[in-house]
Amino acid sequence: MLNKNIETFLGFDADYKDSSFVIFGAPFDSTTSFRPGTRFASKVMRSESFGLETYSPYQEADLTDYALFDGGDLELSFGNTERALEQIEEFTSLVLKDEKIPCMIGGEHLVTLGAVRAAAEKYPDLHVIQFDAHTDLREDYLDQRLSHATVIRRIWDLLGDKKIFQYGIRSGDRPEFEWAAQQHVFMNKFNFDGLENTVEKLQGKPVYLTIDLDVLDPSVFPGTGTPEAGGVSFVELLNAILTVSDLNIVACDINELSPVYDQSGVSTAVACKVLRELTIAINKNNEMGGVFNG
Amino acid sequence: MLNKNIETFLGFDADYKDSSFVIFGAPFDSTTSFRPGTRFASKVMRSESFGLETYSPYQEADLTDYALFDGGDLELSFGNTERALEQIEEFTSLVLKDEKIPCMIGGEHLVTLGAVRAAAEKYPDLHVIQFDAHTDLREDYLDQRLSHATVIRRIWDLLGDKKIFQYGIRSGDRPEFEWAAQQHVFMNKFNFDGLENTVEKLQGKPVYLTIDLDVLDPSVFPGTGTPEAGGVSFVELLNAILTVSDLNIVACDINELSPVYDQSGVSTAVACKVLRELTIAINKNNEMGGVFNG
Amino acid sequence: MLNKNIETFLGFDADYKDSSFVIFGAPFDSTTSFRPGTRFASKVMRSESFGLETYSPYQEADLTDYALFDGGDLELSFGNTERALEQIEEFTSLVLKDEKIPCMIGGEHLVTLGAVRAAAEKYPDLHVIQFDAHTDLREDYLDQRLSHATVIRRIWDLLGDKKIFQYGIRSGDRPEFEWAAQQHVFMNKFNFDGLENTVEKLQGKPVYLTIDLDVLDPSVFPGTGTPEAGGVSFVELLNAILTVSDLNIVACDINELSPVYDQSGVSTAVACKVLRELTIAINKNNEMGGVFNG
Amino acid sequence: MLNKNIETFLGFDADYKDSSFVIFGAPFDSTTSFRPGTRFASKVMRSESFGLETYSPYQEADLTDYALFDGGDLELSFGNTERALEQIEEFTSLVLKDEKIPCMIGGEHLVTLGAVRAAAEKYPDLHVIQFDAHTDLREDYLDQRLSHATVIRRIWDLLGDKKIFQYGIRSGDRPEFEWAAQQHVFMNKFNFDGLENTVEKLQGKPVYLTIDLDVLDPSVFPGTGTPEAGGVSFVELLNAILTVSDLNIVACDINELSPVYDQSGVSTAVACKVLRELTIAINKNNEMGGVFNG
Amino acid sequence: MLNKNIETFLGFDADYKDSSFVIFGAPFDSTTSFRPGTRFASKVMRSESFGLETYSPYQEADLTDYALFDGGDLELSFGNTERALEQIEEFTSLVLKDEKIPCMIGGEHLVTLGAVRAAAEKYPDLHVIQFDAHTDLREDYLDQRLSHATVIRRIWDLLGDKKIFQYGIRSGDRPEFEWAAQQHVFMNKFNFDGLENTVEKLQGKPVYLTIDLDVLDPSVFPGTGTPEAGGVSFVELLNAILTVSDLNIVACDINELSPVYDQSGVSTAVACKVLRELTIAINKNNEMGGVFNG
Amino acid sequence: MLNKNIETFLGFDADYKDSSFVIFGAPFDSTTSFRPGTRFASKVMRSESFGLETYSPYQEADLTDYALFDGGDLELSFGNTERALEQIEEFTSLVLKDEKIPCMIGGEHLVTLGAVRAAAEKYPDLHVIQFDAHTDLREDYLDQRLSHATVIRRIWDLLGDKKIFQYGIRSGDRPEFEWAAQQHVFMNKFNFDGLENTVEKLQGKPVYLTIDLDVLDPSVFPGTGTPEAGGVSFVELLNAILTVSDLNIVACDINELSPVYDQSGVSTAVACKVLRELTIAINKNNEMGGVFNG
Repeated sequence: MLNKNIETFLGFDADYKDSSFVIFGAPFDSTTSFRPGTRFASKVMRSESFGLETYSPYQEADLTDYALFDGGDLELSFGNTERALEQIEEFTSLVLKDEKIPCMIGGEHLVTLGAVRAAAEKYPDLHVIQFDAHTDLREDYLDQRLSHATVIRRIWDLLGDKKIFQYGIRSGDRPEFEWAAQQHVFMNKFNFDGLENTVEKLQGKPVYLTIDLDVLDPSVFPGTGTPEAGGVSFVELLNAILTVSDLNIVACDINELSPVYDQSGVSTAVACKVLRELTIAINKNNEMGGVFNG
Repeated sequence: MLNKNIETFLGFDADYKDSSFVIFGAPFDSTTSFRPGTRFASKVMRSESFGLETYSPYQEADLTDYALFDGGDLELSFGNTERALEQIEEFTSLVLKDEKIPCMIGGEHLVTLGAVRAAAEKYPDLHVIQFDAHTDLREDYLDQRLSHATVIRRIWDLLGDKKIFQYGIRSGDRPEFEWAAQQHVFMNKFNFDGLENTVEKLQGKPVYLTIDLDVLDPSVFPGTGTPEAGGVSFVELLNAILTVSDLNIVACDINELSPVYDQSGVSTAVACKVLRELTIAINKNNEMGGVFNG
Repeated sequence: MLNKNIETFLGFDADYKDSSFVIFGAPFDSTTSFRPGTRFASKVMRSESFGLETYSPYQEADLTDYALFDGGDLELSFGNTERALEQIEEFTSLVLKDEKIPCMIGGEHLVTLGAVRAAAEKYPDLHVIQFDAHTDLREDYLDQRLSHATVIRRIWDLLGDKKIFQYGIRSGDRPEFEWAAQQHVFMNKFNFDGLENTVEKLQGKPVYLTIDLDVLDPSVFPGTGTPEAGGVSFVELLNAILTVSDLNIVACDINELSPVYDQSGVSTAVACKVLRELTIAINKNNEMGGVFNG
Repeated sequence: MLNKNIETFLGFDADYKDSSFVIFGAPFDSTTSFRPGTRFASKVMRSESFGLETYSPYQEADLTDYALFDGGDLELSFGNTERALEQIEEFTSLVLKDEKIPCMIGGEHLVTLGAVRAAAEKYPDLHVIQFDAHTDLREDYLDQRLSHATVIRRIWDLLGDKKIFQYGIRSGDRPEFEWAAQQHVFMNKFNFDGLENTVEKLQGKPVYLTIDLDVLDPSVFPGTGTPEAGGVSFVELLNAILTVSDLNIVACDINELSPVYDQSGVSTAVACKVLRELTIAINKNNEMGGVFNG
Repeated sequence: MLNKNIETFLGFDADYKDSSFVIFGAPFDSTTSFRPGTRFASKVMRSESFGLETYSPYQEADLTDYALFDGGDLELSFGNTERALEQIEEFTSLVLKDEKIPCMIGGEHLVTLGAVRAAAEKYPDLHVIQFDAHTDLREDYLDQRLSHATVIRRIWDLLGDKKIFQYGIRSGDRPEFEWAAQQHVFMNKFNFDGLENTVEKLQGKPVYLTIDLDVLDPSVFPGTGTPEAGGVSFVELLNAILTVSDLNIVACDINELSPVYDQSGVSTAVACKVLRELTIAINKNNEMGGVFNG
Repeated sequence: MLNKNIETFLGFDADYKDSSFVIFGAPFDSTTSFRPGTRFASKVMRSESFGLETYSPYQEADLTDYALFDGGDLELSFGNTERALEQIEEFTSLVLKDEKIPCMIGGEHLVTLGAVRAAAEKYPDLHVIQFDAHTDLREDYLDQRLSHATVIRRIWDLLGDKKIFQYGIRSGDRPEFEWAAQQHVFMNKFNFDGLENTVEKLQGKPVYLTIDLDVLDPSVFPGTGTPEAGGVSFVELLNAILTVSDLNIVACDINELSPVYDQSGVSTAVACKVLRELTIAINKNNEMGGVFNG
């Protein structure tokens, strides 16, 4: 009590040097065109996580079984998108250099670009698995090339064809769907059908997993800027996470929680539970095989 | 920019004369006995529609493929129910006379009576398909014969036996269910089972489609005056719309969105998406066969 | 109109002496560790019940078919947990002595302990069926032995091994799950699988049914203190209630509605509907066989 | 506890026959053109009144000093304005015939017309004091003669020139202000300046007091359909009530609370306190002089 | 009805060419560091303005007395601050070139910089009067020179010493207050004391008036990103506007309404009323003297 | 960044040993009879304080001028009131023993009893100044002697007659006001009139200052469990704090913020500002005279 007040996500109690898994917040939403607010996600998740148990009855494992570190939130420049992405890239690179797995909490989806840049530098053969309602494949959006609506297209600029695997997609403009259909990225609409095939194909590859929580149905997760009806259930997302956790996930993120739009707190509780399950799934796997190191 | 500010539902950009499909708002909720607020639906849907894409990945078609007109909101007399219904009937008749399909955005469900009166005048053999949680079959309600709870009974007064097909019903009083069981209307409780049979039976008939959005489960669509647990999912509703869109739909409406009861905005987003899919489904069909003209 | 204003749950219009089924509120939430508010549940349910129909299209029966009494809310001591439990026990005993079935509306789940104490005194062979997201099996919680998180453990102190049957459980700490696995209680995780087996096993036994409404998925029921993703649907809960209503239910409760966390009112509407269906299910069964009387 | 649950406004515990002051709700808002919701006011005020003390430190008197009766809510026809006004008139007449003072809780301001009709029949020389932000003097509104925006004009139709005294007015259209300036009614804009003069002038006259709570500044009372900045404070309204309570108030009402627009509950708490102070002020005065009886 | 739906702020019905006063929205909030949402202000104000009267009982004048044009909202680049400011500058210049008075609805306060650049180009001797809770005088903020917290400092870069007059200031960091005290700008803390002196001093000068609505007390105006207790009342702000309207106001703005933070709608209603009074005050003055044309 | 995430109230950055002023949270609301939620106050205040400046333009001083320590929140037993008070007393005693000034953030007002017990042990001549809407002088409440409604009476048990000075009181039951009038405590109703006299009288005495934030008008501070119209303004409270800060304040608290009831965040912002001003006022004074040490 007589030390300064420490606030970390529930169960993330280890010191940095002892941890192999590091979460941090990237509170940025300046390019959000419709309803901003994801900047509050990481802060609110930390605060509300004390309503969560550390134990997963799904995986029969506990956050306390692992050494987990919470680095707090990056201080990002609002209104200067490129600089914010650099700050994210720098921090992610630092974590990766120390042979730990970074797990970023957005923020709008654009923050993924900063983390992927860092991961791609360390792992040139990086693949990306994306769970999302939206394609995010626009070439530009409202005259901008750096936007939540273009983020996966910018990642494709970096990684090239056939490195990106999208699941759950149910919104975008027609050119995005047509571009995807030209084999630039793999896209599975509406759900996780065929995810096992992707997992099989990516065995042994370094994988970045990005989870836009709006892949969930808005009934499950109303607290997001652009809710899209027709999404997956929590159990479907959980199973998808367990499925891909067999892969060598070298970095990951969850994003697009916007707590202000769900005053029941349910969306935040769901996000916390997704983070718990994701953390356990990746760390369980690592126990058995270690961090992928290219 | 130097013209007056125009606000239409996303993608409804055509002029009246060029359009074959016309939406308009009927912001009326004076007989709502429990929780009013549907009067704001059309206004809020227009305003929020810019968070929606014009493209449907479900139907692989785009609102921009069609000439669509948004006539704005009718100015209706609050507190004078009969006069408001006349105003709705007049406007609907005008649109029908010009050989366009009217699509009304309620308002409480009673507004449907005004539009059906207009449609029944032009199409004496009119049939009605109703997606709804509630029977709306009372003879009167709180001493009134014109009420959101009696609207389908009033339509039966007009059309007679075996012209009305109800799906998704899960609320009403016992006499309503008993009356329906006397073959006055066809009622399928809880879901859309057997909708194909109705579609088969109504081939070649003029059909009015009325969608009370509370047919959706309240988890999907909380923003309504009388939420009824145990409803259908968005995908089930979407499929039902696609199923009936093969018919000759001469007029339609969606109603009972009450935005104030869902501050997440999810209900409005769902309503916008239903309108997009309904619009595309009807216009796709018309491309192939033209407006039904008796 | 010129009598004092009476406010009862919809359809609970009978006098006490004529009724065989008695609801009452237990507005207590003092041990709630995360988000309080269940104290308002019974009051809000009464007030909002007039948005509900008395007729169940699921069971084709009506609340008005039975003589039902609403005893209002107990006045409980906030901040004195043991005293509040005594008050609940006293009232429940009174109702049981008069050969009526008490149905308590919580409050936090701890209130169940008071009612079970009364029921166990009358029915020494009492069994408990619990629908819940949480195990509630802790030995103590935040230094307290009387808590919403320990309530079922305290009931086990009273009833002993193999008398408690838990369904829908998806949250707790590891020791709780391990303790349950030692055959102290029967626990079925996540859903109602195998409920028929429990019903078969408990034929002829006096049963207390406790429904923590957070067994429902938060999409269906966000208005609760500790929402847990991955729950059951309304229809699944309804079917589970119908399944166990064949048993001799001597007392029951529904708890953990916290209206303030769901401003759409949907959670309250769901709770009202659960109460309607539960009431009809139990009273239908009693019509056929009478109240269990040991 | 074993009687049916009674719910009255705090401190209104007497039987009808013993009371000289009778409150009742008129939950009607069908003509509300902007944001409906006042229909919930009386119900919510009853429910929330238990957060209030019965004692007034302002008047050093207590609700429990008087015999006060709460008649509950009238069941009014939604969507049939004229019928609803008749129902209000009938009930008010009944209370007046029994030599009691009726105090109506609206509803939209139009409900005042029903009560004034009853009062004017018993007291042909009736005068009206109105505390309000709005003139409500339109000849008609949205084609209707019966509307919340025309209610005082309709009362003028009944009572004639120089019988109506308006205070706090700060909104209306220009013709209303011009019409008032022609000496049809007395209007004091913005505040209660000069209220003592009106009180002096109306000594010995039967007075109907109608308080549209939107006379309060929206900072104090946000929960109303048409909030108008620049209103009076709670203490100013309290003093105005105390000032006019010296008159022979034969009937009164408070109206236009719309609880749904103020989720903090502050507006409801203010309305409850205004009702407490108004009740005590009128009953204190009556103790000294008895009900005015023409 | 059969024209496209036009939505303008209440009473702004004239065509561009006929108007001498032009409002437009600048929906930008990308640099907002705390709570974003001002991007919705202009849209919501238009939508809610129909709850307002066009007539001002304060000024005894009506919006309909003037030819007023609403240019709708600019489409601004989110996340590219410099580009957004250019877009604002271009539009403002166009309006100024046509000898009309532009009145911008923000948006965060940074948008003022774009409009002031345009005004300062046309009127080299431009002075700025600022009503605001915050100094906005930082040299940079979170590493950025273009920010809502630096906007007035950037305007000082443009205009130089003794051209800026701040009223109502009650928040900032110490260096800002110290810098202001060095006579770079005139600052009056907390209220409008001495505003008459400023008006006297600026007779005959071209003045840009910028109203950050958070100058109002948060009780009056809670719907803003950074509420600061201790502000002015609506009537005080109204009087301040009337006081400065004697000056030659060549352009103006109101900003920092963030509707999502005030679900009662009161803040939006206040902003609409401020815009009505500001519009009438400036146009009344112009009737007497014409637009200042340097 | 690579240390654990620390979250303290803005500007409370010092280590414990270096500080003379220590804030800590007492998140307890188990006896709250009406609307709970104050348990979240300290957590939310910390989180939201980053929207505040550290500089006070009122006192022309800065939080950063002092060494201030934030001890985080106590972990209190919910549902065991006496144990919670002991925990508060222990911590407060520890801080007092180290010659620092404790400043507790409630929680419901009952928490004050724990802190006063500690202060009265160290300072036998302790006096209490209370700013509050409520008397809190009941002998017992709902059968309990330890309650938010009895807290000042319990403190009187401890300190005896003429040690307690109440300001701003406007709610209680009649016996409380009568008991106070018997000279047990000094009570000033409604406002701070005469506070200078109290300050003069208490020169040189050890003083505990307890601020129930509901002394503020609900328009300024809606986020509290029992809002009472007719309260003081922020500036009035600020001046009262400045007035009493001349005294030897040996401990203090602010309590009864309930953030969930004010979704605008304004109440939390006000509470943060009160804490800033209170902290600066006490520390400024101590600079000149040192901590009172009996």
